[in-house]
Amino acid sequence: MSEIPYKIYLAENEIPSKWYNVRADMKNKPAPLVNPGTGEAMKAEDLFPVFCEELCRQELDNETPYIDIPQEIQDFYKMYRPSPLVRAYCLEKFLDTPAHIYYKFEGNNTSGSHKLNSAIAQAYYAKKQGLKGVTTETGAGQWGTALSMACAYFGLDLQVFMVKVSYEQKPFRREVMRTYGAKVTPSPSMDTNIGRAINEQFPGTTGSLGCAISEAVEAATSQEGYRYVLGSVLNQVLLHQSVIGLETKAALDKVGVKADMIIGCAGGGSNLGGLISPFVGQMLRGEADYEIIAVEPASCPSLTRGSYVYDFCDTGKVCPLAKMYTLGSGYIPAPNHAGGLRYHGMSPIISQLYDDKLITARSVKQTDVFEAAETFARVEGILPAPESSHAIRVAIDEALKCKETGEEKNIVFGLTGTGYFDLVAYQQYNDGTMEDYVPTDEEIAKSLAQCPKI
Amino acid sequence: MSEIPYKIYLAENEIPSKWYNVRADMKNKPAPLVNPGTGEAMKAEDLFPVFCEELCRQELDNETPYIDIPQEIQDFYKMYRPSPLVRAYCLEKFLDTPAHIYYKFEGNNTSGSHKLNSAIAQAYYAKKQGLKGVTTETGAGQWGTALSMACAYFGLDLQVFMVKVSYEQKPFRREVMRTYGAKVTPSPSMDTNIGRAINEQFPGTTGSLGCAISEAVEAATSQEGYRYVLGSVLNQVLLHQSVIGLETKAALDKVGVKADMIIGCAGGGSNLGGLISPFVGQMLRGEADYEIIAVEPASCPSLTRGSYVYDFCDTGKVCPLAKMYTLGSGYIPAPNHAGGLRYHGMSPIISQLYDDKLITARSVKQTDVFEAAETFARVEGILPAPESSHAIRVAIDEALKCKETGEEKNIVFGLTGTGYFDLVAYQQYNDGTMEDYVPTDEEIAKSLAQCPKI
Repeated sequence: MSEIPYKIYLAENEIPSKWYNVRADMKNKPAPLVNPGTGEAMKAEDLFPVFCEELCRQELDNETPYIDIPQEIQDFYKMYRPSPLVRAYCLEKFLDTPAHIYYKFEGNNTSGSHKLNSAIAQAYYAKKQGLKGVTTETGAGQWGTALSMACAYFGLDLQVFMVKVSYEQKPFRREVMRTYGAKVTPSPSMDTNIGRAINEQFPGTTGSLGCAISEAVEAATSQEGYRYVLGSVLNQVLLHQSVIGLETKAALDKVGVKADMIIGCAGGGSNLGGLISPFVGQMLRGEADYEIIAVEPASCPSLTRGSYVYDFCDTGKVCPLAKMYTLGSGYIPAPNHAGGLRYHGMSPIISQLYDDKLITARSVKQTDVFEAAETFARVEGILPAPESSHAIRVAIDEALKCKETGEEKNIVFGLTGTGYFDLVAYQQYNDGTMEDYVPTDEEIAKSLAQCPKI
Repeated sequence: MSEIPYKIYLAENEIPSKWYNVRADMKNKPAPLVNPGTGEAMKAEDLFPVFCEELCRQELDNETPYIDIPQEIQDFYKMYRPSPLVRAYCLEKFLDTPAHIYYKFEGNNTSGSHKLNSAIAQAYYAKKQGLKGVTTETGAGQWGTALSMACAYFGLDLQVFMVKVSYEQKPFRREVMRTYGAKVTPSPSMDTNIGRAINEQFPGTTGSLGCAISEAVEAATSQEGYRYVLGSVLNQVLLHQSVIGLETKAALDKVGVKADMIIGCAGGGSNLGGLISPFVGQMLRGEADYEIIAVEPASCPSLTRGSYVYDFCDTGKVCPLAKMYTLGSGYIPAPNHAGGLRYHGMSPIISQLYDDKLITARSVKQTDVFEAAETFARVEGILPAPESSHAIRVAIDEALKCKETGEEKNIVFGLTGTGYFDLVAYQQYNDGTMEDYVPTDEEIAKSLAQCPKI
């Protein structure tokens, strides 16, 4: 028995009391959001009609390195944080690797993922601004679930536009949201102008995330006392998610371990950005060096095969433009893609760090991802979310390389959530009917050609 | 901010290294299992053909107060234990009660419940005996999931007979079991004599738990190197589940809190028996006093409305007889009962403690249970299993009584698991279509009349 326990828990008073804003240490700042009409950088006031004011300020703050976490948010964090940093003894033994594997497990809360870290912050600032409620969109429902928990806690109204096909075919997260008091509307709905127009133009459509975003933004801006909130991509979200990385670093420091490699899955970039931020901060300040790997699906490879250009954040083109690695805002992974991480672009912060070669990226096929997920579930006892399993795949690959070379690397990865609501995908894998999808260069080029010329 | 943290965690080396066997301190021992043919008490050898040998010894051991937990099981416990004892600050605030509420949360593992505590023990002893595998039955799949995780860990084959209607209508837990490598067969199947007979006699039947037990026992006894395992009711299961109570007591001692009241839901009795055992031990030794409340559904009220007689443990009448509070082995709650805890009888240990008035019991209606569940989810952030929510209901009721009287009682309850796979029931509650069911005295009398005369 090693001295390092299976689960490294921080004490409650070691939960971070400040978020870390990695932009303050970045020499090349992430590019600003841009108004698609004027081509000019958005100022806070430009964003106020859509987003909460304090969140707009956080969005644009590239200077303040540490931002106080309000006490009310700290109190909520105590209900499910600190999350454990787990030493994967059983996985190491199974792989027979000299590597030491650690994972930060963010799935031990009812939202089943790290999304709650930002949801509670966004709900808090909305409440503090005196708003009645917020609106958002959700696909499979992970973000919507987290936000419904946060809004229930602060007594805030929540309207969720849920892509119709998910609303009908994946009713379970919908019911979790309803249990937390959210109003869940299948999108496209008849409640908004854009929803009615889409329903008229495409009768019987089952919806898309882009359409749901457009409806949520319209609902926020057309009702007194409402704003729109978003669960990934934005700088503010990565700021809130820095609690993941701060706790991870504190736990490693506590047991005297220096990470060699940090691995995270990357869809919009919120989990990855949160996990790596304090480590990247050290790199930016010249204090330490790490190998950082962003893992994305081969079916939606924004970092590894996209372009670093200004693009719309949403398919509906109602949001500001962001400079990011993107596949084009019209890019949609093939329907056989079950592994999550379907966003066409990547957080501007992550994009800039990647462009500056502070982090690397790798894409993996979903059958390989589910193979890793199954192995992990059996030996570590946690059924992982498909998204998280992208990081597991690469962690296992790297641990097996260590087996060849004999290196005792310290590998840290983010286990962002659990797969309890993803069992249709697991069934496909168990049945052997899961297929891989890799877009052709032509498909990507065609989609990228639609990006605005800025 | 009080000195007591939101989550009281023990250190890894404070996980119990011995189980506590409350029978050793009981003056009136639980009645022995009896052979239905001869009417004689079962000896260990009589049980060997069906159960693992070491487990048979544990089943019959009424004398040894502490039994060592083998190191391999302790290592597995480290993957998800110690489980937190949570101070329900948010619930207290919401109820505006002077009571202090604590809950022991056993849901932070992929099985979603406390069942894993005994599953890993039973799988270990099966492996140690050199068996190839084990068989079991499962209804909704909680026990089957826990056992599939345990068998995957020890490389043991697992055959689960899953009630056909659940197999078809609740496919998610089925897929979790398959992901862990279990063979899941809808029951009645064509794989056993009894399954074929039932399929022939009742074409198109959707199965029952009683039939699934019979198939699992037949499969265990007709294959070389297999035994049957069971997840509740038995003395051995309550022994393994004592880790819940031992950790709870250690955590309370750590923060200097003496419980006044301990509340647990009761189906077969495994969670309740585990939670209360060290506290009941103190009562039996005259060291302390507690008010202990077993909470059962009004639709399946074995303690509050059943009789304390010898009865079959299974509807199929293939298992030995146990003396217990029972509604009769043919008793099945109405189909509108969605809240779990459907077993017709109660663990012999719990039954004896109840008969000796060391514990009390209360029955609650399921709409009241789901109201408590929803409140709890919204303020404490955890979506509870319907089963666990029976305990939440009574904990809230008692905390509200304290509000009237001004008493600062320390209320401890067991939160046995999460409700992620119970969202059909939550949907019924959200839609307002959930109904209550309370059996008539005539129904219960008719069912009890079928008990064997011993």
